[in-house]
Amino acid sequence: MPTEAPLPPASTIGILGGGQLGRMLALAAARLGMKTHIFCPDPDSPAFDVTPRKTVAAYDDEAALAAFADAVDIVTYEFENVPAATARFLAARRPLRPDGRALEISQDRLREKAFISAAGIAVVPHRAIASPADLDLALAELGTPAVLKTTRLGYDGKGQRLIDTLPEAGAAFAALEPKPLVLEAFVPFEKEISVVVARGLDGTVRAFEPAENIHRHHILHTSTVPAAISPGLARAAAEAAEAIATALDYVGVLGVEFFVTGDDLLVNEIAPRVHNSGHWTEAVCVTDQFEQHIRAICGWPLGDPARLADVVMENLIGEEGIDVAGRLGAGVRPQLYGKRDARPGRKMGHLNHIRGAGRK
Amino acid sequence: MPTEAPLPPASTIGILGGGQLGRMLALAAARLGMKTHIFCPDPDSPAFDVTPRKTVAAYDDEAALAAFADAVDIVTYEFENVPAATARFLAARRPLRPDGRALEISQDRLREKAFISAAGIAVVPHRAIASPADLDLALAELGTPAVLKTTRLGYDGKGQRLIDTLPEAGAAFAALEPKPLVLEAFVPFEKEISVVVARGLDGTVRAFEPAENIHRHHILHTSTVPAAISPGLARAAAEAAEAIATALDYVGVLGVEFFVTGDDLLVNEIAPRVHNSGHWTEAVCVTDQFEQHIRAICGWPLGDPARLADVVMENLIGEEGIDVAGRLGAGVRPQLYGKRDARPGRKMGHLNHIRGAGRK
Repeated sequence: MPTEAPLPPASTIGILGGGQLGRMLALAAARLGMKTHIFCPDPDSPAFDVTPRKTVAAYDDEAALAAFADAVDIVTYEFENVPAATARFLAARRPLRPDGRALEISQDRLREKAFISAAGIAVVPHRAIASPADLDLALAELGTPAVLKTTRLGYDGKGQRLIDTLPEAGAAFAALEPKPLVLEAFVPFEKEISVVVARGLDGTVRAFEPAENIHRHHILHTSTVPAAISPGLARAAAEAAEAIATALDYVGVLGVEFFVTGDDLLVNEIAPRVHNSGHWTEAVCVTDQFEQHIRAICGWPLGDPARLADVVMENLIGEEGIDVAGRLGAGVRPQLYGKRDARPGRKMGHLNHIRGAGRK
Repeated sequence: MPTEAPLPPASTIGILGGGQLGRMLALAAARLGMKTHIFCPDPDSPAFDVTPRKTVAAYDDEAALAAFADAVDIVTYEFENVPAATARFLAARRPLRPDGRALEISQDRLREKAFISAAGIAVVPHRAIASPADLDLALAELGTPAVLKTTRLGYDGKGQRLIDTLPEAGAAFAALEPKPLVLEAFVPFEKEISVVVARGLDGTVRAFEPAENIHRHHILHTSTVPAAISPGLARAAAEAAEAIATALDYVGVLGVEFFVTGDDLLVNEIAPRVHNSGHWTEAVCVTDQFEQHIRAICGWPLGDPARLADVVMENLIGEEGIDVAGRLGAGVRPQLYGKRDARPGRKMGHLNHIRGAGRK
């Protein structure tokens, strides 16, 4: 177990990725007195607006990566699809937290499910699919409906097809790239919940309470805390998330999504980063997920995930992110990402609706 | 009353002053999707670390001020000693909020007290002092001890002398510059409280609850909320602050400090900006003072000052701002300013100790 000294304030944290998660990580780092340097190929990255230090370059630009590593004390990332070569290149020069193994496992749905199962946590029944024959066999075993997914690079419903009846299988297999694919049983779940868990450099783990998530068009719409689940199930979800973080020897914040059916929990997927379903924490927790991630990767003691009020986080998608001023009534804490272009499906900001926030 | 459209997200807010208040204003502006541009003569300003847009120039550099005005949509400030000529120059080019009148009045202790008295709010008994003869007469009227202060540019105990006995008067008068001075009665107060109040572009006023302040070596040490005062006194303080903001036709956040003796309130001073004694709001309020200021100056609806928990804000002064990681236990929400040089008396950060923040 590493026992390094905590990174002192005024150190520079390098962040791969300049989207809203990178932006909110940079804002949290600033609250801890840290500087940030954002690396992103997109010159219009929203995170560039909250720090004077940026690199606009491709993730395989080794000269740019080397200069970036020289300019920072530590490297983290806001997205799980950091190329393996990029992670290796940077990790050879500066501490990379979370590490490359967390990326490798979470980038591949098959490896991810195998890893989580090996840690003793139940995952959605699934089969690896390399050929149409594999798919036929798997559909016979798992039944229909079932969901065929790419193993890599899927998010927000992209890279997947629902197979309702067997005749749809061939077209679904042909449409999805790259191969191999994974077939997942269709889980008739009652609820989706998620747990954001942090693990410190000293091995301490701390989970935030589970959030209950509702998706719209495959994009997270709301996260509600507390989730309408029993205390026992909430504890089980937190313990499962903690067990995964520990098994990964993880440092930082990790998102774990679950399907809930009765008293059963199945892990849907994990994300080695701060998570959209954890945005509620910034409005009502002593320490939010962004500060918690920065504390963890800097070797600081983890913060206090205690919650001060009930809350519903609402994502603002596309045009919902325009003319927000009129929606900021009592109990609303907004976070807007400063994006100019409100494309359909684009996450523009979110509102935290704090419940029971009358004057004490 | 102005009825302008709210400033849209991705607008640029110009901030005069690059200290921790400017830094926290910039962080709050980012949460509302705004860009910021910091103007400060000090190249090491902590606010420069949280935005890519800065101007390093003197406040009387008209070329730099003109370019700054061209680069921003609106101008605000983090300190009350913005030179009058600077305020006039900028206000001719862009909306300046709060306006130059708020600066003129708050820069001069005599004008400030006269203005507050005229608004029907009690201030500390005082006399204008232009000569030693004025001082002798005023000491005869107000008695000793009394406090002799410069009318301009005093802060954190600078620019003032306590006169315990009459023979000390001559030396105190000679020592303080610039003249004229003001002699204030020594108020044997029981408590110091302060109210941070916001007024929107539409004239709406909203006060945060009063904080009870303890100073150490003339520098704010802690602010505790709720203050140990009666509900009636808390309401009276909030109403006085609201009346001052309204009388000033103010737009933005204003800090008002009071002395409390029994059921009596006397205004000590006002500050036309976010206020150190309002830093507790960021840990426990739906909307904090920084977001509230940005909302107000952008013509957005004011946010919700409701409070979710009890809190004690503790300033970290000088060396207290080093090695903070070990002090971040349960219930603590830190804000560190990223300053490298921990000079004695320098404000390095603050900790909000949240009370009763156990898991709900």
